Amino acid sequence: MSDSDSSLSEPVLKKAVLKEAALAPWRSSLARALHRNRSRPYSRYFQLSTVTAAGHPANRTVVFRDFLPNTNTLTVVTDQRSAKVADIAAHPWAEACWYFTHTREQFRLAGPIAVVGVADSDADLKRARQTAWEALSDNARQQFYWPHPAQPRESEADFSPRDVDEAPPGEFCLVLLIPHAVDHLELRGDPQNRTLYSYQADNTWQVKVVNP
Amino acid sequence: MSDSDSSLSEPVLKKAVLKEAALAPWRSSLARALHRNRSRPYSRYFQLSTVTAAGHPANRTVVFRDFLPNTNTLTVVTDQRSAKVADIAAHPWAEACWYFTHTREQFRLAGPIAVVGVADSDADLKRARQTAWEALSDNARQQFYWPHPAQPRESEADFSPRDVDEAPPGEFCLVLLIPHAVDHLELRGDPQNRTLYSYQADNTWQVKVVNP
Repeated sequence: MSDSDSSLSEPVLKKAVLKEAALAPWRSSLARALHRNRSRPYSRYFQLSTVTAAGHPANRTVVFRDFLPNTNTLTVVTDQRSAKVADIAAHPWAEACWYFTHTREQFRLAGPIAVVGVADSDADLKRARQTAWEALSDNARQQFYWPHPAQPRESEADFSPRDVDEAPPGEFCLVLLIPHAVDHLELRGDPQNRTLYSYQADNTWQVKVVNP
Repeated sequence: MSDSDSSLSEPVLKKAVLKEAALAPWRSSLARALHRNRSRPYSRYFQLSTVTAAGHPANRTVVFRDFLPNTNTLTVVTDQRSAKVADIAAHPWAEACWYFTHTREQFRLAGPIAVVGVADSDADLKRARQTAWEALSDNARQQFYWPHPAQPRESEADFSPRDVDEAPPGEFCLVLLIPHAVDHLELRGDPQNRTLYSYQADNTWQVKVVNP
């Protein structure tokens, strides 16, 4: 994981995530965790940390939507007006921390991150954004029509349900996290088990079993 | 929350956290969340994000230990050899993201962060570190005698239980997070409720009800 990775231009980065990739070796562990914790809906939530333009860490809970088809890229959705979009523009690198409460294991997934918005013209990215919009529940879609997040709440503000459009509103963004380093910690086990996965320049993964 | 806050010298910062403070207005909401989610042990876990020396975000699950007595400072414990100690030395600012699964609410707590280690000579800080050591379970204490975290796992490595000392080992550190900004989001409610608390130069808190 070199620093130069985080300076990939936006179009290059976004195009790169659509490239088909072999299933990374951490994918089976993550799939197993998702399966074994599936009775708890919040098992699909993780905490996404970014760095603000001022250089401070920011951290919030997001909902895992899916992997981009045939890639190891995680997707979440966000509002163009949310602070994380500005963070990512300033520092296009993130670390997700995903803790599974039932199996007591944690995945940390770090790597470049990109936002796909209404202005993206690439056909594949447009399709990915449209697909993500269609996969959302009606309730989740409503939120993109709400007043500006984090602005003062006005008593007359309109949060009432409305018809959702087939095309996503301009506020709707797809976020792509491309893990370059994954740290899997299993608290069960005596002692605990910890495995580090690190993406290499030749498109392979290095796997190391380390002390917890 | 000004950037200059993050450049407080370590001794000044650490001394500051011991100053008695009035209960911050977000404390009652957080206490209620802890109480209402108390049947789930992982309700005391949160995700702590920091910034590495290289400027990347880092994010991991930690266990909330307690508030420092008579302050609004959150404490966690860590191993001197863990990466977060180096992160904090490089960038002494953090954001905790604390999601409560039963009540479906999130607290984001951001502010200066400091590490109290074996070399700290201040009597109050030494006492706080000692108290934190004594409050740990035997199992949790064992981990500070384990081999170096994140180093390659050797088959002959010694993870066997040993007698724990009354004095914490050199590896044991107390971590102090002093919230300067708190963002409380309640997903229940139609629409959701969100309140921002911001610490002011005159030691008061500004409270704003905002759009979710």
